[in-house]
Amino acid sequence: MKAIIHIELKPGVLDPQGRTIARSLAHLGFGDVKGARQGKTIELDLNTEDKKIAQAQVKEMCEQLLANTVIENYHIKITE
Amino acid sequence: MKAIIHIELKPGVLDPQGRTIARSLAHLGFGDVKGARQGKTIELDLNTEDKKIAQAQVKEMCEQLLANTVIENYHIKITE
Repeated sequence: MKAIIHIELKPGVLDPQGRTIARSLAHLGFGDVKGARQGKTIELDLNTEDKKIAQAQVKEMCEQLLANTVIENYHIKITE
Repeated sequence: MKAIIHIELKPGVLDPQGRTIARSLAHLGFGDVKGARQGKTIELDLNTEDKKIAQAQVKEMCEQLLANTVIENYHIKITE
């Protein structure tokens, strides 16, 4: 089974990486860019074959290690 | 319009961040994790209202700045 986790900063949390991207794109002449936010994606290969167990495990991983839940939101997708 | 860009390392390219995540999860007791890969997501707010123009612009942004096409693949999704 595979788990795809999207982690992004909560709305309102300052995103310096996103700002840098937006500014750099403007410098390159892409004037249509109003704003940019950067997040991360983690893809996990799991041994579990049970979707529910996988979902619960990955949620626990996010809470314990992968996401900083004070400033970040996460979404889990289980596939295969 | 919004553009969501997923950037990930090409298969076969060493991913030290992913390795660290997999090892850390194992240390925490999540033995079911066989492997992990980390990528990034960039969300752009665009002034353009034309989907085709947006797609072409964002592709150009990826080629010029956002992705390192030697070692990374990218996927663009245009929404709204």
